[in-house]
Amino acid sequence: MEKKYLFSPGPTMLPPEVLLKMAEPIMHHREPEFEKIFAEIREGLKYLFQTKNEVLIFTSSGTGAMEGAISNLLSKGDKALVVRGGKFGERWGEICKAYGIEFIPVDVEWGRAVDPEKIQEILKSNPSIRAVYTQASETSTGVKHPIKEIAEIVKKFENTLIVVDAITGIGVFNIPMDEWGLDVVISGSQKALMLPPGLAFAALSDKACKFVERSDLPKYYFNFKKELKSAQKNQSSYTPAISLFVGLRETLNMIRREGLEGVFRRHEKLAAATRAAVKALGLELYAPESPSNALTAVKIPAGIDGLKLQALFFEKFGITVAEGQDRAKGKIIRIAHLGYYERLDMVMVISALEMLLKEMGYKFELGKGVKAAEEILMT
Amino acid sequence: MEKKYLFSPGPTMLPPEVLLKMAEPIMHHREPEFEKIFAEIREGLKYLFQTKNEVLIFTSSGTGAMEGAISNLLSKGDKALVVRGGKFGERWGEICKAYGIEFIPVDVEWGRAVDPEKIQEILKSNPSIRAVYTQASETSTGVKHPIKEIAEIVKKFENTLIVVDAITGIGVFNIPMDEWGLDVVISGSQKALMLPPGLAFAALSDKACKFVERSDLPKYYFNFKKELKSAQKNQSSYTPAISLFVGLRETLNMIRREGLEGVFRRHEKLAAATRAAVKALGLELYAPESPSNALTAVKIPAGIDGLKLQALFFEKFGITVAEGQDRAKGKIIRIAHLGYYERLDMVMVISALEMLLKEMGYKFELGKGVKAAEEILMT
Repeated sequence: MEKKYLFSPGPTMLPPEVLLKMAEPIMHHREPEFEKIFAEIREGLKYLFQTKNEVLIFTSSGTGAMEGAISNLLSKGDKALVVRGGKFGERWGEICKAYGIEFIPVDVEWGRAVDPEKIQEILKSNPSIRAVYTQASETSTGVKHPIKEIAEIVKKFENTLIVVDAITGIGVFNIPMDEWGLDVVISGSQKALMLPPGLAFAALSDKACKFVERSDLPKYYFNFKKELKSAQKNQSSYTPAISLFVGLRETLNMIRREGLEGVFRRHEKLAAATRAAVKALGLELYAPESPSNALTAVKIPAGIDGLKLQALFFEKFGITVAEGQDRAKGKIIRIAHLGYYERLDMVMVISALEMLLKEMGYKFELGKGVKAAEEILMT
Repeated sequence: MEKKYLFSPGPTMLPPEVLLKMAEPIMHHREPEFEKIFAEIREGLKYLFQTKNEVLIFTSSGTGAMEGAISNLLSKGDKALVVRGGKFGERWGEICKAYGIEFIPVDVEWGRAVDPEKIQEILKSNPSIRAVYTQASETSTGVKHPIKEIAEIVKKFENTLIVVDAITGIGVFNIPMDEWGLDVVISGSQKALMLPPGLAFAALSDKACKFVERSDLPKYYFNFKKELKSAQKNQSSYTPAISLFVGLRETLNMIRREGLEGVFRRHEKLAAATRAAVKALGLELYAPESPSNALTAVKIPAGIDGLKLQALFFEKFGITVAEGQDRAKGKIIRIAHLGYYERLDMVMVISALEMLLKEMGYKFELGKGVKAAEEILMT
């Protein structure tokens, strides 16, 4: 018998009841029924992003909203600061480059969190920086960056925004947008939102809206100003991915029923159990100091072929875990636990890891990882 | 009992078996199984677009691919020619404007097809025009533009491309890309492809690829060059709308089983029947000279409130027909018949139209529209 399990940091496993809801006959996006769904979604997203402001929705992958956060906030000649501690930090730099925006990178060793002091130093000596681009959770390394601390620094610079790619942060750990004074927060549907890929989100502060007003970079499909106006009429500017909207209403309701605190606590528990299990097996975390609760990046021990381990996960157990990307390729595996995951899901993946490592000749006591996980999952 | 029917030109009705296929547990887009699907889709799209070249796929609405066809083909200082005979023609102009591209509009009365001679004149006197942007089927008016004739003209200009928004043309009537020498052909998932909205397509000729190489306009998410490379590895550059890809394989297979000729013949028959019915009721077509087989735009007769008629369709019969857009608002209704539509679907919508018009006091003989349709549907 074949069963399949996703433990990749996007797409993630999806609730079957939501999949079936999305399989209902499609409705038209200019019907009152859709506008009602849109209105509910707007409220649900505000709750999820912890903001009173509008959360824009685009039919695209998360990268589309990242691009929009550059083309809609900056103007010709503006400078940016980019935190680069992984593949997605690098993406901020690539988008800046595509738009001719000069940026100062803060390069961070993969697996480490950025030091907010460095950001402060650069902002002080470069008053022309108009925005700081960072990740909340760097999906390629499993690191959580200190967003609250960065926001406190950026707040001191009146003409500078803080833009947070929280694609694997929102709905995983606490990122209270308004309370922390974040200007733009981005997410995507295929992560903690428990949906297929295809929707991207961008929440904007009042300060960010002012930058949108003056921005002169070219944009059309990812036009924040136009989308703000459309959203206020419970509409998208262009034909939206209707079925994903229908699913989104469902998953936002699931999140609301569990409550944000419950959602964060669950992710904290699953992540802590996974980390404890990994350590109990004698393995090392790739991001030991500031791990994200979205996923656990595990260093491949000496003598074990990382790509083979990843392949065996799928072959023997139908489990998709993520390999390392770019410079981390073959050096880590990434086990995700964001979205539709509960305690016993983690037991499964840890157990599979144990059986595979044993088979591959790695020395440890079978069952020790699961035991360490259980001790936390029981609390 | 409530039943609902979509007769709008996107989204269109969807095959339930495809909806259920998309409701299966989601797979990861870097798995061999997904790459296999991607490879099949590439072949299916080449068949559908009648091209040997690559058809790029973007997770976005069709507008995203339209934007890409400007930002990836043109360079700073290039000029464009834009056929504007409806809302979507106007969109070409808006995108040009967003990118600082000067364009010469060929304004066409709504409901009429463009005269290719005008395009030839403008191209002759403006050698700096690098691309002609047009629709194959202008969804806002129900007009079919003479693409073959336009292509023959553009072909004479070595440094000029013909770019066709065939969002409601592909899979409806014959647009043989390679045979006619079209450089870029665009479509979207929620039209004849019988899927929810969320995917956009752009097929590129070799000549178009050369323009892509030299283009210097900013772009990131809609990057044709990058997407071409990814497609050749059966991958998307960014996380794709996986469930729509899964559905796309199914609907492309449906199209292949029916055969393009069968698909075109079916649309021709449904469209001819609808037009005959409308005329038999004494109504006028909005695009009498060059109607598109994707949809039939019908003029609202004097004394009838067009917006009320559209509202009653939904209220009394659960049918969504499209109203007129912008300057055609209240003046027409648009009845779509592209995608998952068969003969009796048209009987339903024509019958509903008869009953509603009768109720609203329009004078005609009940049943005459259905009779005229049947005479064609029987052939």
